[in-house]
Amino acid sequence: MSTQTTLSARTKLGFLGAGQLARMSALEAFRFGIQIAVFTDRAENEPVQFMTPFSTSGSFDLIEEMVEFAKTCDVVTLENEFINSEILREVQDKSGTPIFPSPSSFALIENKLVEKQTFEAAGIPVTPYKLVKSDEDLEKFGSEHGWPYLLKSSKGGYDGYGNQTVTNLEEAKTAYHNLGGTTGHDILAEAFVAFTHELAVQVARNETGTVVYPCCETIQKNHICVAVLSPAPVPESIQKKAQNLALKATETINGKGIFAFEFFLTNTGEVLLNESAPRPHNSGHYTIEGCVTSQFENHIRAVLGLPLGSTQMTKPAAAMINLLGTHNRPAVADHIVEGLSAENGHLHVYGKVHSKVGRKMGHFTLLGHDLRETYSKARDLTVGFQI
Amino acid sequence: MSTQTTLSARTKLGFLGAGQLARMSALEAFRFGIQIAVFTDRAENEPVQFMTPFSTSGSFDLIEEMVEFAKTCDVVTLENEFINSEILREVQDKSGTPIFPSPSSFALIENKLVEKQTFEAAGIPVTPYKLVKSDEDLEKFGSEHGWPYLLKSSKGGYDGYGNQTVTNLEEAKTAYHNLGGTTGHDILAEAFVAFTHELAVQVARNETGTVVYPCCETIQKNHICVAVLSPAPVPESIQKKAQNLALKATETINGKGIFAFEFFLTNTGEVLLNESAPRPHNSGHYTIEGCVTSQFENHIRAVLGLPLGSTQMTKPAAAMINLLGTHNRPAVADHIVEGLSAENGHLHVYGKVHSKVGRKMGHFTLLGHDLRETYSKARDLTVGFQI
Repeated sequence: MSTQTTLSARTKLGFLGAGQLARMSALEAFRFGIQIAVFTDRAENEPVQFMTPFSTSGSFDLIEEMVEFAKTCDVVTLENEFINSEILREVQDKSGTPIFPSPSSFALIENKLVEKQTFEAAGIPVTPYKLVKSDEDLEKFGSEHGWPYLLKSSKGGYDGYGNQTVTNLEEAKTAYHNLGGTTGHDILAEAFVAFTHELAVQVARNETGTVVYPCCETIQKNHICVAVLSPAPVPESIQKKAQNLALKATETINGKGIFAFEFFLTNTGEVLLNESAPRPHNSGHYTIEGCVTSQFENHIRAVLGLPLGSTQMTKPAAAMINLLGTHNRPAVADHIVEGLSAENGHLHVYGKVHSKVGRKMGHFTLLGHDLRETYSKARDLTVGFQI
Repeated sequence: MSTQTTLSARTKLGFLGAGQLARMSALEAFRFGIQIAVFTDRAENEPVQFMTPFSTSGSFDLIEEMVEFAKTCDVVTLENEFINSEILREVQDKSGTPIFPSPSSFALIENKLVEKQTFEAAGIPVTPYKLVKSDEDLEKFGSEHGWPYLLKSSKGGYDGYGNQTVTNLEEAKTAYHNLGGTTGHDILAEAFVAFTHELAVQVARNETGTVVYPCCETIQKNHICVAVLSPAPVPESIQKKAQNLALKATETINGKGIFAFEFFLTNTGEVLLNESAPRPHNSGHYTIEGCVTSQFENHIRAVLGLPLGSTQMTKPAAAMINLLGTHNRPAVADHIVEGLSAENGHLHVYGKVHSKVGRKMGHFTLLGHDLRETYSKARDLTVGFQI
């Protein structure tokens, strides 16, 4: 494949999926003067649908609908992991429109079991896991790795959905059933890792080269990311280790696009790969203002085959706070004056039509010089937001 | 009017005009999760029309069309100066939708004669001018202020259109005729000012406050801006003077929105107001990456009544190069690899469907520490662009 060195106003980039990741990627596509089209399976009006005249509603199960959509695009990309790689391959073959990340890259990570096997085989340490198939397996994993542990459906899963923490055999049996184990779904048991930090690294890669973002820390609450700090407050050697593993993982799946990798930094100083995503990731939202080239811009560059942009930070420290819904109501961002007025503060509102308590409605990034101070200030500024 | 402290996904901001200024403003509106609608009088597909499902084509002379459009919006704003303030006022009254900058602000600057009188009355020094009505006036202005001088139509004019440099009486007569002087248009004679620099300052203002951007230098070639350097390489006292005049000018017209003011720094160290624009301006494109809050973001904030963002520069120096069409052809940005790969370089392509030689097709901003070096590097990086 040759390097793309041109940008044409007639280039149309298609997104399968129309959530906030497509929306923020689209903003960067527009900056390059190209057009976007979206294909969504949601009935509700998605914000990105207000940003293009080229919006199609359909089903991620109906290949013909996606083929027709892909035919109107020059390149198609993903913004979630909900479409089977086999279907993606068929859409690509039948439409003649390339899909990046490629269906074959995606095939290596869409299934959590295959994903772990793939990365393990490449020498990337992953959290201890086992495919469980019976009550005996559930019990054995507990005795070997201790309770509690995690059960995960090998397919799907997003923001903690599809995962369950189990503290004893009874809970494990129930979760196994609820996750679909008794109806044929592959269920993974995963050891609870005693960690000091959760880290994340984004990598953009295409035929022109590879760039890696700083290693950041993600702060989770009930399996939902509430904040991201960059660079992660861990020794530089650990940051480097995570970055190198992320680079290796991207190469292992021959990735073209933007990828995010989440790691545990264990009590004993190990860096274990936890999850990967073949798309822009919440952990990288801070890069919009925090890095010279955002994850979204490098997403666009990567899938179009353009040279990748610098991932250097623009200020020594960045803190990103997820703005989770505080109300169930028609979406309104309220009491945001302090956030809007903050020096080096950047408010992003996703334009979702309805707020739900806990739903990701926007984010706020604060740049600064000292990480701890920046984080503390960012929390103070956003604590009164009603969204 | 009370301060707007909320953002709703159902807010719709309407643009009268659909050029690159609406396009870049829209990107910031999207960041806040609000919707945009555009009304354009162009037959050609304008890039921003590819960015919204809410696009109306019509005439800037047909009030009813614009009223219907405005009724679908919560706030309407401008991106050019082509609509008469009387028409704007009628659209506002009949639709019930506020227009910012307000028709009454606009009325003070839409006519070059009124504009100069307004600012002069406020104590803002302007370039020497005279309303000319006869051959005698044309001759007299030349004897008093020297040849060559400028003739300007008091209405319209953009990027040098509507202006003409005249070096003798014969040329003056022809230009007077060509600009519409013989068919009733007001024509201004304006003295050629011997200047060392052309400066520009943007100001954002609304009921929550006023912010002023750094004083930058605009570099013109054949009346077209080819580059902008910020901060302008002039003494700080001069920068401050220009900023203060810009603030005063914005107050004088009771502006709500984003405004740009262009100045001459004369050989004798005077700062004279040359032109004003009630909208984002080419001189402020560097603010997208060069300042904490871009002129486009403050445009959106200002017209929505939101608190204004910091105008502080993100790096000590910024150089913006306008990418003017190098070919007459379907628009393609070519040979851009160096620009895309540049550390701290930011390429913007406007997505226009057709290139014309000299047409503004995009811009490139480079940030750095030393202004001269940054400018020189930016020119080197873009010299091979074909667009």
